[in-house]
Amino acid sequence: MYSKEIQKMLIKEKIEIGDKILLKQNNKEYSGVLMPRPELGDENCLVIKLDNGYNIGIKTTDNFKIKILEKLKPIKKTVEKEKLEKGDITILGCGGTISSKVEYKTGAVYPAISQKELLSNFPEIKDITTINTRSIFSLLSGDLNQKHWKIIGEEIEKELKKDIEGIVISHGTDTMHYTSAALSFMIQESPVPIILTGAQRSSDRGSSDSKLNLLSSLMAAKSDFSEIGVCMHSNLNDNLCYVHKGTRVRKMHTSRRDAFKSINQLPILRIDYYNKTVDSVNKYIKKDKNRKPKINLKLNENIGLIYIHPGINPKFIEKLSDYDGIVLAGTGLGHVPTNAFNDKNSKSILKEIQGLIKSNIPVVMSPQTLYGRLNLNTYTYGRQLKQIGVIGHLCDWTPETAFTKLCWVLGHEKKMEKIKQEMETNFVGEITDRSVVL
Amino acid sequence: MYSKEIQKMLIKEKIEIGDKILLKQNNKEYSGVLMPRPELGDENCLVIKLDNGYNIGIKTTDNFKIKILEKLKPIKKTVEKEKLEKGDITILGCGGTISSKVEYKTGAVYPAISQKELLSNFPEIKDITTINTRSIFSLLSGDLNQKHWKIIGEEIEKELKKDIEGIVISHGTDTMHYTSAALSFMIQESPVPIILTGAQRSSDRGSSDSKLNLLSSLMAAKSDFSEIGVCMHSNLNDNLCYVHKGTRVRKMHTSRRDAFKSINQLPILRIDYYNKTVDSVNKYIKKDKNRKPKINLKLNENIGLIYIHPGINPKFIEKLSDYDGIVLAGTGLGHVPTNAFNDKNSKSILKEIQGLIKSNIPVVMSPQTLYGRLNLNTYTYGRQLKQIGVIGHLCDWTPETAFTKLCWVLGHEKKMEKIKQEMETNFVGEITDRSVVL
Repeated sequence: MYSKEIQKMLIKEKIEIGDKILLKQNNKEYSGVLMPRPELGDENCLVIKLDNGYNIGIKTTDNFKIKILEKLKPIKKTVEKEKLEKGDITILGCGGTISSKVEYKTGAVYPAISQKELLSNFPEIKDITTINTRSIFSLLSGDLNQKHWKIIGEEIEKELKKDIEGIVISHGTDTMHYTSAALSFMIQESPVPIILTGAQRSSDRGSSDSKLNLLSSLMAAKSDFSEIGVCMHSNLNDNLCYVHKGTRVRKMHTSRRDAFKSINQLPILRIDYYNKTVDSVNKYIKKDKNRKPKINLKLNENIGLIYIHPGINPKFIEKLSDYDGIVLAGTGLGHVPTNAFNDKNSKSILKEIQGLIKSNIPVVMSPQTLYGRLNLNTYTYGRQLKQIGVIGHLCDWTPETAFTKLCWVLGHEKKMEKIKQEMETNFVGEITDRSVVL
Repeated sequence: MYSKEIQKMLIKEKIEIGDKILLKQNNKEYSGVLMPRPELGDENCLVIKLDNGYNIGIKTTDNFKIKILEKLKPIKKTVEKEKLEKGDITILGCGGTISSKVEYKTGAVYPAISQKELLSNFPEIKDITTINTRSIFSLLSGDLNQKHWKIIGEEIEKELKKDIEGIVISHGTDTMHYTSAALSFMIQESPVPIILTGAQRSSDRGSSDSKLNLLSSLMAAKSDFSEIGVCMHSNLNDNLCYVHKGTRVRKMHTSRRDAFKSINQLPILRIDYYNKTVDSVNKYIKKDKNRKPKINLKLNENIGLIYIHPGINPKFIEKLSDYDGIVLAGTGLGHVPTNAFNDKNSKSILKEIQGLIKSNIPVVMSPQTLYGRLNLNTYTYGRQLKQIGVIGHLCDWTPETAFTKLCWVLGHEKKMEKIKQEMETNFVGEITDRSVVL
C-alpha cells in the first residue's frame, strides 16, 4: 500500500492501480501505468511502468501532480458468472505457473482456470472428459503452508461427496511434493483419483509443459488409479508423463520439465497422451466409487525441518524448543555429530536432542542423502539417537514426507509413545520394506 | 568416564577397559570384558560384555566386588614403530569405515592404515605405486567439522612440500562431500592430485567397496589429474569408479556403494581398475609438480545451513542472528515464503532475512532440489530476495558447496560487498555457465 497521502490523491483523481496516468514534477512529465507498491518499496514513492517497459519510482514529497489518462480495462473474470455444467472431473485451482495468466500491464497474476478459458486454450480436453473447474486460491506454491493444505483438503472432501470420476489439482511446483504428501495422510482410501499437476514453464512460453501435464492428469483422473498422485513430465521430450505416489515424489531440479522424481520407489503410472495409453509401472489402489474415504484434516502447524551439517551449533538445537515437533535431515544413515562441540561449556548435539525429547517434543530422523533407508543400528551414533528416543529407524522416507507426516500425526496425537508408534507405522506407502531406485 | 569411586576401584585392582573381569554382587557372579561407559550411560553403572555377547550394566552402589581374570592383549599399533619408506603416494587416514578395524572385545575402532597392514591387506597396491601412510585422526565423518578440515588442510600442505606424486585421503562417507568442497577452496591449484575416498560397507563384509575404492584412488593419484577429487564406485558392480570434482559431488544414498553423484556436472575420471585404464569424462587441471599451490586454510566455524519449508516460523529465522553467515536451502528456483505468517504480529520471513543482512550477516541461497540453477529473477519472490541482498542469483551450487564456500570466504573477508562478490565468483568449478545432468 502507498502512503495515506498518496492514497488520498489517487482517490481524489479517481486513479486505480493499472490505470495509465500522467505525472508532473519539477517541469518533467512522465506517462505510464500505475503499479502496486513493491513489498519492500518506499511508501512515498509512486511506481509507474513507462511505455518502454521500465518501471520508475518517483518520490512524491516535492511539487507533484498526477492525472488520469486511461482507465485499466479489467480482465473479464468469467469464473463466477459462468453457468457450470456437471463434469466427470473436477479441476481445483490453487495457483502456480500452470494456471496463471500474467496481466502484463501490472504484472499481476490471475487464475486462468475458468471452464471457458481452459476449454478454449486446450480444446483437446473435450476428447478426454467433461470438467468442472473451481479456483480455491491463487498462490505460488512457495507461499503455501499447513493452512492451505487444510483448505485444499476441505475442498476435496466436498468433491468426494459428488458423483465424479476424479479430481485434478493445479498447483505451483515448488512445494507440490509437500502438499501431495500431506494430502496423502489427510485423505486416505479415496474412492477416486486425486491428481496434482503443475508447470515448470509458464503457458506463454513455447517450452511450456502445462498442456501435456494437464491433459495427462485428466487421463490419470479418469483411470482406475485411486490414490493421491503427482502427474508431471517423465523426461525432457514433451510426450510422456509419470504419475508419482504422493508420499514418494520430490522436486529434484530447479527448472527442468522432468524435475519430479519418485524417491526409493518406481512411479505408479506412465501416461502417453499422444497414443492415449495409461500403463501401470507399480502397484496401486484401484478406483472404487463406493469406498468411503478416511478423512482427517487436522494438522499441527508448528513443526521444524532441520538440516544437520558439520559445525552445527548445539545452541541452535536448544532454540528449537519453540516447535511442537522436529524433523532432522541427518547425514549418512541418519546421524548427527555426537562429539562435544568446540565450546567446552556447551552440551553435545545429542544431549540437546535428548533435552527436546524429554520436554515432550518428538524428534524424527530423515536422510539428507534423500535416497536410501535410515539405519540407527549400524553405528554408535545411530544407536545413541535411537536410545534417547529419536524416531525413524529403518524408515525410507524423504525429509519432506517425514515432515508432513509429523504435521499430521501431531494434529491428532499428543502422547510420545503413540506418536512414535504412528510415525513408524506405514499408512500410505511412505515406509516400504524394499526401496527401489530407478 | 565412570564415577570417581569406580575409577578408584579399577585402579586398585589394576583393571583397565578391555580386561576380562569377575564381578560379584549379592551372591551373583558375572564374568566378562569391561566396556567403556556409554556416552549416555549412568556413571555408577559398570558395563561388561558377557561371553554370550550381550552387554549388561550393574549398579555399583550395593555390595559389590570386582577382580581381574585376564588382561586385554592390546592390538599392536605398528604405525609409529614402522620404518617408513619414501613412497610416491601419501595416504592420510582420517577414519571412517574404509580405514577402521573393529576391536571386537570393546567395540572400539582403530585406524588400520599402517603401511604394513595396508600392504598385507591389499597386496595389489604394490602393482600401482609405493606409498607412505599416516593417520591424522580416526573419526567417523559425521563428527567432523571445520576444525578437522583445517587439520587435514595443514597435513596436505606439509605433504605438498615433499616430492610426491599425489595424496589419497581415507575418510568417512557421511560428510566426505563437505570436506572435499572445503578443501577445494582451501587448497587451490595443487601441483598433484588430492583424492578423497571411503567405503560404504566395512572391510569385514563381503560386499565391501573399500578395496576397489582404495586401489582406484591410488590410480587417480598417479594420473595427470590435479584437483581435489572424490573417488568412489560409479555403479553397483564392483568394477568401476568415478572421480568427482570436490565441489560438485554429493552423497545421494544412505547405503549404496554408488552413493556419490556429481551434481549439475559430469564426473571427471572413470577408473577401470581391472583393465588398468583411467579415462577422462570431463575437463580438469593437469598435474604440474612445479606449480605453487594457493593455500588459505582460514575458515569461519559459525555458519548455519537452513532448510526452508512450508510453515517455517519467521521467529526461527530471527534466532539465526547468532550465526556469522547463513546458507538457505530454498524451494524451487531459490524461494522462501514471502507472505505474512499466521500470527499477524509477526514479521514476514522476508523481513527477518532483511534484518539479518542489515546486521551484517550474509545470507546465501542454494536449491533444495539439489539439481539445477537458482534464478532470483523469474518470480517476484526471488526478485525481492535479490533486492534485499541475498547472495546466489544464477549459481548452480549444492547447499553443501555453498555452505563450505561461505565458511571459507568468511574466514578471510568481513565486508558484505566483498563477501557477495567473492561468493558469486567462480573459484574452483563451484559455479558453472552450463549445468549438465548425467
